[in-house]
Amino acid sequence: MAFILPFKQVDVFTNVPFKGNPVAVINCLNITEDQISSKQMQAVANWTNLSETTFIFKSSHPECHYKIRIFTPLNELPLAGHPMIGTCKAFLEFTETKNVSKMYCESKLGVIELSIASTGEISFKAPPADIEGIAAEASAGYQKSLGCEPVASPKLVRVGPKWVVFLVSDAEKCYGVNPDFAKLKHISNIFEHTGLILAGSKSGSMTNFEMRAFAPAEGVDEDPVCGSGSLALTRYLHDHFKYSETTQINITEGGRLGRDGHIKTCVSIIESETSYSTGGDAITIINGTISI
Amino acid sequence: MAFILPFKQVDVFTNVPFKGNPVAVINCLNITEDQISSKQMQAVANWTNLSETTFIFKSSHPECHYKIRIFTPLNELPLAGHPMIGTCKAFLEFTETKNVSKMYCESKLGVIELSIASTGEISFKAPPADIEGIAAEASAGYQKSLGCEPVASPKLVRVGPKWVVFLVSDAEKCYGVNPDFAKLKHISNIFEHTGLILAGSKSGSMTNFEMRAFAPAEGVDEDPVCGSGSLALTRYLHDHFKYSETTQINITEGGRLGRDGHIKTCVSIIESETSYSTGGDAITIINGTISI
Repeated sequence: MAFILPFKQVDVFTNVPFKGNPVAVINCLNITEDQISSKQMQAVANWTNLSETTFIFKSSHPECHYKIRIFTPLNELPLAGHPMIGTCKAFLEFTETKNVSKMYCESKLGVIELSIASTGEISFKAPPADIEGIAAEASAGYQKSLGCEPVASPKLVRVGPKWVVFLVSDAEKCYGVNPDFAKLKHISNIFEHTGLILAGSKSGSMTNFEMRAFAPAEGVDEDPVCGSGSLALTRYLHDHFKYSETTQINITEGGRLGRDGHIKTCVSIIESETSYSTGGDAITIINGTISI
Repeated sequence: MAFILPFKQVDVFTNVPFKGNPVAVINCLNITEDQISSKQMQAVANWTNLSETTFIFKSSHPECHYKIRIFTPLNELPLAGHPMIGTCKAFLEFTETKNVSKMYCESKLGVIELSIASTGEISFKAPPADIEGIAAEASAGYQKSLGCEPVASPKLVRVGPKWVVFLVSDAEKCYGVNPDFAKLKHISNIFEHTGLILAGSKSGSMTNFEMRAFAPAEGVDEDPVCGSGSLALTRYLHDHFKYSETTQINITEGGRLGRDGHIKTCVSIIESETSYSTGGDAITIINGTISI
């Protein structure tokens, strides 16, 4: 059966059009999930050619405002960063919801809590993420594919996607790297990593970073502004710097692709409990309908 | 200045949604070309992440219905295949134009004549295209990057994009090729080629072909269904087979990317004059507005 569904394409991690990371969002609130197959959703996501396309359904969880399904051009993802934020922005507009500060979204990794600041910035609290070392062979391979050395051991952070975080000496070094994508893809495939998050500190700061996200094994050589990558980096930085109190981290990303993304992440340390969140601005660029 | 402009995303070379090649089309008929800069158009095209994004303006040519500007994520193109067809489809819908059989479009390569069949299929007549041999080194390099041998000398056809046409023994061989994109990109860059059109005949036919289009040097490893590539192939096939009369060629493309594109090209031989056209179906998938 064919449907004409409400559609938005939202620019995330920016308040300047075309400077962030786009996500296509399809409003399926007026149909049920069994009326559209995963195969159909995958075909749509393959065709939009964006790093992610999402579908909003009614949730069966009583506390959730909606359920999200997230697809790359090649796969369904359990969770992703900028799509969570762009989809929340689209949901608020689709449903003309105003003056809320908390939203709850059902994902394949459980219920995700989103916060909407009075400025309109949207952030979400990530599920707990493991951090672990990687094989020496993987580390050496990534080093070769990037053509530069890390300043600390690269580590794997599982935030839904499996990102290897690779910290270099400074922001300029990070910006200047020209990866060998074929090599990087090869290593990601061997070790079953989603890809690599490259980051460097600005002027030696522990809270200001330039970041880049490479995922050639997922069909995206470089993602312009990567939310899940920012979570992986933040988890890594806490492991590395051992922040003693709640710390906000400012990340810029996308300059090499002509973008100018701004991500704000947070390590929240409340009593003995630590949690991680990421967020930023989002603006709707394309507004209309899609025929499926 | 910010605008909200009519927007469509059209699927080209198919009548089944999501099986063709998408083009984003922005209707600038109600603004003038000096109200939007090339830099802005380039930023939009980079952001949509499609192989092409087009902008429709009023034309100053009295015989032209509109003027087209065509952008890849990285560059402006003088002319392109599927964007010409998708943009004509969008123009007809934007302007509610019905029952026309000819349309004229101003492009950077001059006035392009489009035909609209009673079935709705849209085709256009290509400007004359040169065909020439390529350096032995380029030919050997492409052969290595594809991992297979051509059945005739690869040649360069300038149809706006500069495509090297590489004919293999049959459709199955064409479908099965797994290019080394890094190598292919390298050779394209050295010899300043847009990319490579791979094709193989179906059951030895001189008029039925499977085709693939690789343009890693333009940031598109494989284009799903490529109109300009079909023109280059058709020019090449006429050089190779020397058709003695007007001949229609059926091309399928995109299977390896989950698409199912159908392209109909034609070598028109009228008296001593030969011309080339390409065309197919197109359907609008996304309909709405874009904020620029």
